[in-house]
Amino acid sequence: MSAESDFHALMARIARDPAARSLADDAAVLAVGGERLVLTKDMLVEGVHFLPDDPPGDVAWKLVAVNLSDVAAKGARPLGVLLGYSLRGAAWDRAFAEGLASCLDAFGLLLLGGDTVSLSARGGAVLSLTAIGAAGAATPARDGVQPGDQLWVSGSIGDAGAGLAVLRGELQGGEALVRRYRNPRPRLEAGQRLAPLVTAMMDVSDGLLIDAGRMAAASGLAVQIELASLPLSEAFLAALGDDRAARIRAATAGDDYELLFAAPHQRATQLLGLSQELGVALTPIGAFATGAGLSLTYEGAPTALPERLGYEHAPQTQP
Amino acid sequence: MSAESDFHALMARIARDPAARSLADDAAVLAVGGERLVLTKDMLVEGVHFLPDDPPGDVAWKLVAVNLSDVAAKGARPLGVLLGYSLRGAAWDRAFAEGLASCLDAFGLLLLGGDTVSLSARGGAVLSLTAIGAAGAATPARDGVQPGDQLWVSGSIGDAGAGLAVLRGELQGGEALVRRYRNPRPRLEAGQRLAPLVTAMMDVSDGLLIDAGRMAAASGLAVQIELASLPLSEAFLAALGDDRAARIRAATAGDDYELLFAAPHQRATQLLGLSQELGVALTPIGAFATGAGLSLTYEGAPTALPERLGYEHAPQTQP
Repeated sequence: MSAESDFHALMARIARDPAARSLADDAAVLAVGGERLVLTKDMLVEGVHFLPDDPPGDVAWKLVAVNLSDVAAKGARPLGVLLGYSLRGAAWDRAFAEGLASCLDAFGLLLLGGDTVSLSARGGAVLSLTAIGAAGAATPARDGVQPGDQLWVSGSIGDAGAGLAVLRGELQGGEALVRRYRNPRPRLEAGQRLAPLVTAMMDVSDGLLIDAGRMAAASGLAVQIELASLPLSEAFLAALGDDRAARIRAATAGDDYELLFAAPHQRATQLLGLSQELGVALTPIGAFATGAGLSLTYEGAPTALPERLGYEHAPQTQP
Repeated sequence: MSAESDFHALMARIARDPAARSLADDAAVLAVGGERLVLTKDMLVEGVHFLPDDPPGDVAWKLVAVNLSDVAAKGARPLGVLLGYSLRGAAWDRAFAEGLASCLDAFGLLLLGGDTVSLSARGGAVLSLTAIGAAGAATPARDGVQPGDQLWVSGSIGDAGAGLAVLRGELQGGEALVRRYRNPRPRLEAGQRLAPLVTAMMDVSDGLLIDAGRMAAASGLAVQIELASLPLSEAFLAALGDDRAARIRAATAGDDYELLFAAPHQRATQLLGLSQELGVALTPIGAFATGAGLSLTYEGAPTALPERLGYEHAPQTQP
C-alpha cells in the first residue's frame, strides 16, 4: 500500500454519500435543483506531473484538460473552473495566465474564482483546479459493465507517452506526439454523445491496461484486451513501429486522455455511426466476462501481461 | 503591487462572466437549472496559514471553516467539498483525515472528491479545498451598499488574533481565544437568515478595517467605523483590556470569520430581533456615506487610522 492509497482509504470511509461515488470514479455527481452537476479536482505538481522547463502556457492547458477529461468521461458539459495557484515568478505567472485564458476560451469555460498562495522558498509550483459541469440524465460510472459488453476506446493510444519520450530525448518522433503530451484534447463532445449509449465510461489517464483493469474490478468482471486492436496513430507507428512491444508500450504509457467505455454488442453499429459523425475513432478493443482480472491476447493468442500496467499513483478523483 | 495582486489582475481580466463577480467577491455565484450555486476555493499553506505544530485535526477544521465562511457570506447552505491534499506523513495524514471527518459531520457536509499528491522532499503541506453551496434568491455581493446604510458585524472581533498571540507566547489569555483561532465557526445559519435583509455581505478574514474598506470601495462609498462599538468578547477584554489600542488590535487582527454586512437604518429592529432569535450578536459599528475611504471615530471623536489595516495578501476568492 502506498501512502496515497492509505490516505485514499481513509477518505473513502468519509465519503459515504452516493454523490461521491465512493471516490472510485472520475468525478462526483451531485443532484442540485433538477440538474446533475459533475465536480472534479486534479492537482499538478512541478517535477511530478510536469517538467520545470515545460512552457507555462502548456502547463495551464494541461491543468484544465486533465480536469475536463474527467468531466467528459461523465458525459457532462463543462461550465467553469476554480484555480488554486502558487506564484512562481512574474514572467512564468504571466505566461501561465495567458495560456489559461486561451485554454478557457477554446473550451468556452468560465473562470469562476480560486485562490493564490506563495510557497516562497520551496521550489516548484503546486497547481490545483476544480471543474464543474452539467450532465444530462446519463452520467456513466465505472461500475456498470455487464458480462459480454465490449470494451471500446476513443482516438489513439500511446501518443502522449511517446511525446514525453521525444521531449526527454529518448525517442525520435514527430511534433504531433509532443503536442499530444503537452496539449491533450479532452473528448467533451464524444463524452456527451456516448453517455446515453454506454454501460460504463472513464478516461484513460494512467495507462490503458491499468485503467481497463480498474473498470473491470469496479464492475466485478474480467476483461480481455486484444493488443492488435489498439488504435495507434500514424505518428506513433512511424516512431515506434508495430509489434507486440510497441503495443504494450502504448497500452501502459498513460496521459492519453481518451475515453474508455463499455457497451453491449448490439450497440456496435450505432457506435461506429457516431464515430463517423464525430470524426473521432471509436474502436472495440476487448470484451468483459464473468470472473476477475485482466488478460491480453495478441493476434488472437494469449500473451503475458507486462510487469507495469500504467501509473500506480492514486486515480485522479481520489483525495 | 504584490506578486499576488499582479496575478490577480491578470486573472480578473480572464474572469469576465458575471458569475465570477470579477473575482472581487468571497465566492462565485453560478445559476444552474433554477438553482444558484455558490462556489469558493481557499488554500492553506503550512508556515503561512497554519503553524507546523498545529494539531492536524485543527488544520482540517480550519481548511473547511474558512471556505464555509465564504459560503455563509453569500447566504448559502453548504452541500459538499472537494479536497486537494499533499501527503505529509502517515500519522499526520491519519489525524488530518479524522479531523476532516468530524468537521464534515459537524457541518453536515459531503466529501465529494479531490486529489492527493506527494510533494516529497519539499517541506510543508499545501492544502486546497473547494466548497459548493446552494443559495436562495438573495446572494449578497460586496458592492450593493447604499449611502446611509449601517455597517454591522456578527459575533465578536479580535478573538482569533489574540488566540494566535497566546499560542506564540506573546499574550496571556484563555483557551477560548485559542479555540477561536484554531476552530473558527462559520456563521452559516446567520448568513442564510441575513442574506435577504442586507445590501452587501462578506466575511471578515483579513481584518475588520481592511475588509470594511473593501466593501466600501466595491460599493463606491466612504465608511466610518466607531471603535467603541466593536463587539469584544469577555475573553478578549480579560486578556487585553478595553482601550483604543486594544480595539485597534481587534479591528486589524484577522481570522475572525464573522459576517460583515450593510443594511438600511430601517432594518435595525428586525436585525436585532434576528440576533435574539439566533443567539448570535449582531452589532451596528458604523455607517456608509457618499465619498470614498475609511475613517474611524473613538467615543465619537475622529481618530487616526492605524498603519496596518489587516492582512494584505490577496482576498480569498482571488486566484
